[in-house]
Amino acid sequence: MKITEKLQRQRTKEPSKPTFSFEFFVPKTLQGVQNLYDRMDRMYLTNPQFIDITWNAGGKVSMNNANTNDLIHTCQSVLGLETCMHLTCTNMPVEKIDEALQKAYDSGCQNILALRGDPPVVDEKAQQSNALKYDGFNYAKDLVKHIRDKYGDYFCIGVAAYPEGHPEENNVDILIDYLEEKVNAGADFIITQMFYDTDSFIEWCGKVRAKGIDIPIIPGIMPIMSYDSFLRRAKWCQINIPKFFLDKLDPVKEDDQAVRLLGTDLVVEMCQKLLDSGYVTHLHMYTMNLEKGSLIILEKLKIIPPLHLTTLTTVNQFAISTEHDDNLPWRKSLNPQRKNEMVRPIFWQRRPYSYVARTSEWEADEFPNGRFGDPNSPAFGGLDLLGSSLIRQSGKNCLQLWGHPTTLKDFGDLIVKYISGDLKCLPWSDTPITSEVDSILHYLKDLNKHLIFTINSQPKVNGLPSNDKVFGWGPKNGFIYQKGYLEFLLPKAELGRFLELVNSNDSLTYYAIDNDSNLYSKDGSEKENADSDNASEIPGSKANSVTWGIFPGREVLQPTIVEKESFLAWKDEFYEILRQWKINFDNHEGNEKSADLINSIINDYILCNVVDNNFISPEQQIYSLLTQLY
Amino acid sequence: MKITEKLQRQRTKEPSKPTFSFEFFVPKTLQGVQNLYDRMDRMYLTNPQFIDITWNAGGKVSMNNANTNDLIHTCQSVLGLETCMHLTCTNMPVEKIDEALQKAYDSGCQNILALRGDPPVVDEKAQQSNALKYDGFNYAKDLVKHIRDKYGDYFCIGVAAYPEGHPEENNVDILIDYLEEKVNAGADFIITQMFYDTDSFIEWCGKVRAKGIDIPIIPGIMPIMSYDSFLRRAKWCQINIPKFFLDKLDPVKEDDQAVRLLGTDLVVEMCQKLLDSGYVTHLHMYTMNLEKGSLIILEKLKIIPPLHLTTLTTVNQFAISTEHDDNLPWRKSLNPQRKNEMVRPIFWQRRPYSYVARTSEWEADEFPNGRFGDPNSPAFGGLDLLGSSLIRQSGKNCLQLWGHPTTLKDFGDLIVKYISGDLKCLPWSDTPITSEVDSILHYLKDLNKHLIFTINSQPKVNGLPSNDKVFGWGPKNGFIYQKGYLEFLLPKAELGRFLELVNSNDSLTYYAIDNDSNLYSKDGSEKENADSDNASEIPGSKANSVTWGIFPGREVLQPTIVEKESFLAWKDEFYEILRQWKINFDNHEGNEKSADLINSIINDYILCNVVDNNFISPEQQIYSLLTQLY
Repeated sequence: MKITEKLQRQRTKEPSKPTFSFEFFVPKTLQGVQNLYDRMDRMYLTNPQFIDITWNAGGKVSMNNANTNDLIHTCQSVLGLETCMHLTCTNMPVEKIDEALQKAYDSGCQNILALRGDPPVVDEKAQQSNALKYDGFNYAKDLVKHIRDKYGDYFCIGVAAYPEGHPEENNVDILIDYLEEKVNAGADFIITQMFYDTDSFIEWCGKVRAKGIDIPIIPGIMPIMSYDSFLRRAKWCQINIPKFFLDKLDPVKEDDQAVRLLGTDLVVEMCQKLLDSGYVTHLHMYTMNLEKGSLIILEKLKIIPPLHLTTLTTVNQFAISTEHDDNLPWRKSLNPQRKNEMVRPIFWQRRPYSYVARTSEWEADEFPNGRFGDPNSPAFGGLDLLGSSLIRQSGKNCLQLWGHPTTLKDFGDLIVKYISGDLKCLPWSDTPITSEVDSILHYLKDLNKHLIFTINSQPKVNGLPSNDKVFGWGPKNGFIYQKGYLEFLLPKAELGRFLELVNSNDSLTYYAIDNDSNLYSKDGSEKENADSDNASEIPGSKANSVTWGIFPGREVLQPTIVEKESFLAWKDEFYEILRQWKINFDNHEGNEKSADLINSIINDYILCNVVDNNFISPEQQIYSLLTQLY
Repeated sequence: MKITEKLQRQRTKEPSKPTFSFEFFVPKTLQGVQNLYDRMDRMYLTNPQFIDITWNAGGKVSMNNANTNDLIHTCQSVLGLETCMHLTCTNMPVEKIDEALQKAYDSGCQNILALRGDPPVVDEKAQQSNALKYDGFNYAKDLVKHIRDKYGDYFCIGVAAYPEGHPEENNVDILIDYLEEKVNAGADFIITQMFYDTDSFIEWCGKVRAKGIDIPIIPGIMPIMSYDSFLRRAKWCQINIPKFFLDKLDPVKEDDQAVRLLGTDLVVEMCQKLLDSGYVTHLHMYTMNLEKGSLIILEKLKIIPPLHLTTLTTVNQFAISTEHDDNLPWRKSLNPQRKNEMVRPIFWQRRPYSYVARTSEWEADEFPNGRFGDPNSPAFGGLDLLGSSLIRQSGKNCLQLWGHPTTLKDFGDLIVKYISGDLKCLPWSDTPITSEVDSILHYLKDLNKHLIFTINSQPKVNGLPSNDKVFGWGPKNGFIYQKGYLEFLLPKAELGRFLELVNSNDSLTYYAIDNDSNLYSKDGSEKENADSDNASEIPGSKANSVTWGIFPGREVLQPTIVEKESFLAWKDEFYEILRQWKINFDNHEGNEKSADLINSIINDYILCNVVDNNFISPEQQIYSLLTQLY
């Protein structure tokens, strides 16, 4: 959605509340990108109106280097964050600009911050050789006009403003003339350079408005994290530091902690003044890819509740903020291709990245099985996730995070560490465990102790209010349900006994499959006439809805399913993850025993899932069945 | 589905149980057709494998005369009964035969009983004038071959057999030769002429099998209803009556009751012998369009439970037999066009005929809104239901059933009579009330007494087992839910106060519309961003599921909805019904006051529906709100 639309909507709300956004830059390594996604996930919970990402064409550091378009795509598609893409025009051929715009368009990004960028480097030799090819723009206004010409009203276009002057132009009035030209070229909003001189900024706003420029002005806010960086950035931007800033900070400049505390108070005071001025309803936080500095300012301004800051590192990074009242139990994608996505297989519950990657080729109405009932399940994309690895950690990080398990007991202990919240991820779970599992945690721990390894789970829920702190999702005044679910690795020796027990239980349906693709199942779709093409068979027996919600004036929403086709795809992914983990041990000397362990799990265990379809009974049938196997 | 397939399936069941079917003929009047449908509805509950309908091309009695194809279509599409169509070939031009076959095909009928029919009438004049046109078949075997040639394996073809000879051919062995020819032409099963001589029949079966004919033999069973008709039919068919039949029946021949009782015992004894012989697993009952005679035989054979016979006239004719375990809360259609039909608007809950007629042009995936979420609701067909009337009773019957109400109190009393079960239908409800309303009956009665007229309703249900006697539907081991629903006529004077109350209630959503199409609503789909085209809006906010079920290994089934588009269509139908009722008073002298009454209801009342979305709370919010209007 367009930023201006979001701001307009927020302004007309009663009571209207200030809003905010976060700026990030593209990290230099893939691990850095992964860490940034984790951070963005957490910051999503504070409900920013948008995030923006500075321009980086990528490819400079290594072949694997992510670029701005990659981040925009992931934020829109996987994280469900509304994005704004920075785009610079100097030193950029038009075809490069057009490629970036098209990629943003395809990702569903509707906001561009159109910038001039660094002044062209004068390299005559290069210029000569590129003389025919290079046809870029010299000014941001040219870029704005180009985007408008090419995409009409599709993009919401922002432009930069320099309330205290620009390194190349000191005269603020001339800069406002330039700003006016950019606005006339088609800009929709303004984001300003950082500043600390509030009075001067407010005066500048007055001038801008006097000039007839009436689009939103969004001040860029730079938190103060250390005295050095504070001075350096101010100097670099050539902005004025009010005397009372220095008076407060200089005495404690050696104490980073004190600088942060006092600096935060100063910036909070500044932001409050901005909001009170009437010119500003939205704060744009220059995060420098850090979360705490920006969040504490917003918290002190009472724009976000204190809860967010204190618990942010422990909450589920993929949890649903209650502020997103139209959400499903997983994060809704903002990619236009996925706008009809209403259902996901539970197998990827804690692997949103690989799920989105593997389903990225699906049409808008194929999520999945054409929203239930269509027997032609779309094929899942391959396991080659655009060069990314299935284990979203570097080889070194794998060893650091998960160590060197050599026995089945070690393997179980690792899982217990994860489900207890002491480990943020596992090779097959990218996102941390949530308090949702609390009610079944002792069962899970017990199973892992008995070398039945739990992979994924959800407890039963029988009609909790949709605003429940742990399980709630969706619109208000609704009711939430879950069927009990457990996915686990069972020693092949126990399979016969397991099948005997589970087949004789009316409430339980299951799938079990080994590395050689031998499949065992009872999925509720067997009917005496299953092979017949007659009309009496109920459609929709292909998928088992395990999470659903009932809401006023709506159809039943059933966002999570268990289903055969997707389980088969998940099985491939799961065993491939184990293989990649094993290979990582192979690649690091001295880990032969760990490699053997993973290998034996691949060969001697079978991947099973069981659904307890009686979500009403308090009896824990899955666990009482499995304990019979000890 | 094919009859042979059904028989095969039943035979392989453990324990295998004898099956049965019913034969009907086409009544001569539309009211007779209506009564037959009501009867078929009730007999559906006994779970016959199929029904068959004798051939009648129609058009002989009046323009409005139904024909075999019409009945076949209604049985497949509305009643959900598997049908077999009789088709005779003599005196029928091929294009007529092909037309009948194509219509059967289009209705989803897969079974044809191919008959020769009455011997051609020798009318030389007619023959001469038709000499070029007439190119029909002379023998059933020709018809069998024609169907096979034209439709391949699509149809399951039955042929008639005469175990005791035929009026035109006495020699049973020659008749078996003829039968063999028909089988060789492509017949799949045999239905026999009526008979009472069991030993002779069993002997005949032996001969048929000895000849190598191994397709199912289905004996035609004629109940004995009176001594006269028993003798007359036996004589007409030239069949032998065993002496012990006459010995038993002749002494009581003047006492119809005694003849029926003794005759039933004789036929039951005969059927048991047939089933014990091993040649027969299925009984075809010649009902003569009556239900009791056939059902009592099946009950005494313990093929159907005694319950059916004793309560058959009081149970909901559209209730779901628990034997149809894949059913929805409404009767599933067997028309192939409707095989994806999984949802119906609640407004037509007691009007299955007009609903099916008005949606007959819909494609298989349009029931409705493309199974939720598709905002392009298909248009409902017009109110001109193929020449049939919206009030499914003759003008005379209307007066008999619903009398001459002249006051609002009379109108309310009529509704109370219906909801109390003392009246089988109302102008806007074709099917009787069920025990489902018991829990809210006192509320409904009270509302009608206070001149708020109830039109349709369902009580809340919070997770009853799917085999619940009153509310149950769908596969076993499931759970059933309903949101509370009430549709009613509210005096326009009360509208303002009603809207005030209902708008301030979080649990209730509603639509209200008057005869001039002024619409008031709160349907849960209003969102601040309802006018935006962005991806964040949840699809499926167009329909409110008011009945749903959760089953092992399945998606949530949500077969009944409340939805704006269909309510608008229903409103047109409802007010048109009232207008037709008024016109009927206009057409019968002395009913001016009744006509005025209906007219004032059309003009001074508004049609409302309210859904109580809190199906969990025991509080009856709809009724406690409406009582505030007294």
